[in-house]
Amino acid sequence: MAPAAPRCARAVIEYDGTAFAGSQRQSQQRTVQGEVEDALNKLTGERITVRFAGRTDAGVHATGQVMAFCLPTSARAGTIGWRELQRRLNAVLAPDVAVRGLRSAPRGFDPRRAAAARTYRYRIRQGGDRRPTDRHRTLEIPDRLDVAAMRAAASQMIGERDFAALGSDPHGRTVRRLMAIRIRHQASLIEIVVTGNAFLRRMVRSLVAILVAVGRGEVAVEEIEPMLDARQRALRGRAAPACGLTLERIRYPRTGEINDT
Amino acid sequence: MAPAAPRCARAVIEYDGTAFAGSQRQSQQRTVQGEVEDALNKLTGERITVRFAGRTDAGVHATGQVMAFCLPTSARAGTIGWRELQRRLNAVLAPDVAVRGLRSAPRGFDPRRAAAARTYRYRIRQGGDRRPTDRHRTLEIPDRLDVAAMRAAASQMIGERDFAALGSDPHGRTVRRLMAIRIRHQASLIEIVVTGNAFLRRMVRSLVAILVAVGRGEVAVEEIEPMLDARQRALRGRAAPACGLTLERIRYPRTGEINDT
Repeated sequence: MAPAAPRCARAVIEYDGTAFAGSQRQSQQRTVQGEVEDALNKLTGERITVRFAGRTDAGVHATGQVMAFCLPTSARAGTIGWRELQRRLNAVLAPDVAVRGLRSAPRGFDPRRAAAARTYRYRIRQGGDRRPTDRHRTLEIPDRLDVAAMRAAASQMIGERDFAALGSDPHGRTVRRLMAIRIRHQASLIEIVVTGNAFLRRMVRSLVAILVAVGRGEVAVEEIEPMLDARQRALRGRAAPACGLTLERIRYPRTGEINDT
Repeated sequence: MAPAAPRCARAVIEYDGTAFAGSQRQSQQRTVQGEVEDALNKLTGERITVRFAGRTDAGVHATGQVMAFCLPTSARAGTIGWRELQRRLNAVLAPDVAVRGLRSAPRGFDPRRAAAARTYRYRIRQGGDRRPTDRHRTLEIPDRLDVAAMRAAASQMIGERDFAALGSDPHGRTVRRLMAIRIRHQASLIEIVVTGNAFLRRMVRSLVAILVAVGRGEVAVEEIEPMLDARQRALRGRAAPACGLTLERIRYPRTGEINDT
């Protein structure tokens, strides 16, 4: 008799990136993947590999990261329900990482390949205003930024193009589609919300660094197009600090959004 | 020639209470008052006493605490402008405490006595939902609460009365006026927003503990009145954990709100 097929699941995962060396497993480092895989191992006795929709760097947060994994049909892992597994995972995971909306997924579901769009939010507190209760997920800067100029610069970046000026790709394929950059401004808080089909490594933080340079008057709106066209890392590869960045949402085409759990 | 009068100031102060042993100075402990007074001493060379509008316990946060102090007319302290002093204070204060809206105050201004009302917010994440990026200022509980029952119970508490059942006062004067308790409920987040003319020690956290007990079905709405009338600590003095509580706003009668800085 053939063994029963493994059961596969997907879930939204939220983490405070402050104390993580990034999302992907690395030896000798505390990572989100390592924590989740260790928790699954503790609960099932199995070595289970978890895949994420997006790779996030050390210090970057997520409220809407998506992950997927499959459980083998072993004695301990084969019978537990998803809801109960989520409860047990959250009971053993550290306070800075949590699982939400764990549910069945088709076998072979790849959260990275299946994703149609990703949305990141970068939060800036300007003008020397400091908000201690919000500091873990915000960049605080002494400057005041010209938000109108930043919006004008952002509009120059939208569209499908070669974004080699903003980041790198392990296979050298640097064309991406930037669908939207919304800049919200209320009192001292500026939020840059970026949606694209996919992103190069460091792309969002490089993009934010350029917009902040525009907001400071260091870069003119007219320089944006030539900067991108040069396809060499803009501003010598300057990137905004990780603490202000949050991966907020992953969109999937067929099944709709799975983050609203 | 008589010496020039000292110059007095007031400001809004925000802090993440997690790493503080409360607002008021205590020897051998890290407190908000201690940190601010040490910063003022560093900047002016003077020993300056800071007064707060409300005393907060260890672990309790504030986004709208109000403080006041006076600068002697010494060489270093006598000439600096308030805006510049705020900038320098924020540069030397630790990341978990900050000063906003520092401005001139009448000599003798007592932020505690002058206050007409205080508003606290208590944040609860229910049903086992965990939000790591928000965990520092929220209580996470496995239960699901009956919010309608909690609102009914809250309405029984409004008004001026002896609140000895909910807290203590160093002078044994336990009459206070509770002006409003609003309970907001959205998805897994429940926020209890309490406004009163003043509060007894532990009063907000005791009040929240009772409302949570009602939400769990452990205490009936009809028990609230007798519980308060007994004037003995309700639920054996049970209090909700400090991490969920934030002092959000202090109102002053003549000058309007000074938190909107």
